[in-house]
Amino acid sequence: MEYPSKSLENLIEALNRLPGIGRKTAFRLALHLLRAPAAETRALSQAIGQLQETTHYCTTCGNLADTTQCRICANPRRHTGVICVVAEPQDLLAIERTGQFGGLYHVLGGVIDPLAGIGPEALRVAPLLERAALPETTELIFALSTSLEAETTAFYLARKLEGYPITLSYIARGIPVGSELEFTDELTLARSLLQRIPYSAKAAGE
Amino acid sequence: MEYPSKSLENLIEALNRLPGIGRKTAFRLALHLLRAPAAETRALSQAIGQLQETTHYCTTCGNLADTTQCRICANPRRHTGVICVVAEPQDLLAIERTGQFGGLYHVLGGVIDPLAGIGPEALRVAPLLERAALPETTELIFALSTSLEAETTAFYLARKLEGYPITLSYIARGIPVGSELEFTDELTLARSLLQRIPYSAKAAGE
Repeated sequence: MEYPSKSLENLIEALNRLPGIGRKTAFRLALHLLRAPAAETRALSQAIGQLQETTHYCTTCGNLADTTQCRICANPRRHTGVICVVAEPQDLLAIERTGQFGGLYHVLGGVIDPLAGIGPEALRVAPLLERAALPETTELIFALSTSLEAETTAFYLARKLEGYPITLSYIARGIPVGSELEFTDELTLARSLLQRIPYSAKAAGE
Repeated sequence: MEYPSKSLENLIEALNRLPGIGRKTAFRLALHLLRAPAAETRALSQAIGQLQETTHYCTTCGNLADTTQCRICANPRRHTGVICVVAEPQDLLAIERTGQFGGLYHVLGGVIDPLAGIGPEALRVAPLLERAALPETTELIFALSTSLEAETTAFYLARKLEGYPITLSYIARGIPVGSELEFTDELTLARSLLQRIPYSAKAAGE
């Protein structure tokens, strides 16, 4: 297809490379940017241009950060004894949004996936073992998804952490809050049965 | 919500201002750009930054252009006698994609919409009248949508063009190709009946 101007074509092609942005959406966005206030397009252009240079990874937990330490590790009010192990920074953010976790995180940077050529050495496993050996560490919570790769990763880590004087746990799998029992898939339902928890007035009331 | 880094937050906010890009999509795009090759993010940043400075509007037809003349008006193989009147550059592109039109265009820059404060003086009406008065111009085709505003615009233009020695036409409204008669809405079906065209072997065969 022939575009009316070279600069529009350049932008459409650049936008089209983004995940989930097809040609039509790219074109619509480009036309929007063409008419948007100059300050808005400048802000977007600069934000994209500066992103990689100004974003760092926390040397402790691997989370995205402004400097060498992320905001969570730098927060003195966070509980340093419990470390929540996640695959990616977006998983960390999902847990933060719940507002239910006051400990620290450890971002692995992915999960073990032999088919994609990702072995344990590609993940931040060694720093995790170091942190697990710290005297203040009491518990690691695996907050990984339910994929085969994620379960393999949890299994691998649990093996590596054998003998450490810490508690290992993982987030519960079960029927999602608000979902109907009859429409829950069999695997999830089976798991929620196997991993049933003692009914107590406290748990029911909360 | 607290984002892990200021630069990521800036980008998410800038992306979130684009039409159809919510916070979640903005976040996903930002994470993609964080990991994308530097050349890719640089290309996108520059394409956005340079768009408004390097995109011009054709002084003849109002289409987007690299210079003061668009590629269509500059093309000597286009038929200069027939001018297709459209509201926006994207309408022009939609018609170009059909490959069925070899004439020139005129982009109005919108349609008359009193409720939005858009009167005829905000559109490129005067240049259209000038072009309609040129000796080589034989026909104007209104390729406007079927909204009330678009029909008002066509009516307004037709009034203004009364007495010009040219043919005025508008693109056919009817049942879309490939659609079922029984599921076609009543207005469209009524129009396609009122504007029925003589059946000929030529039309049926094409």
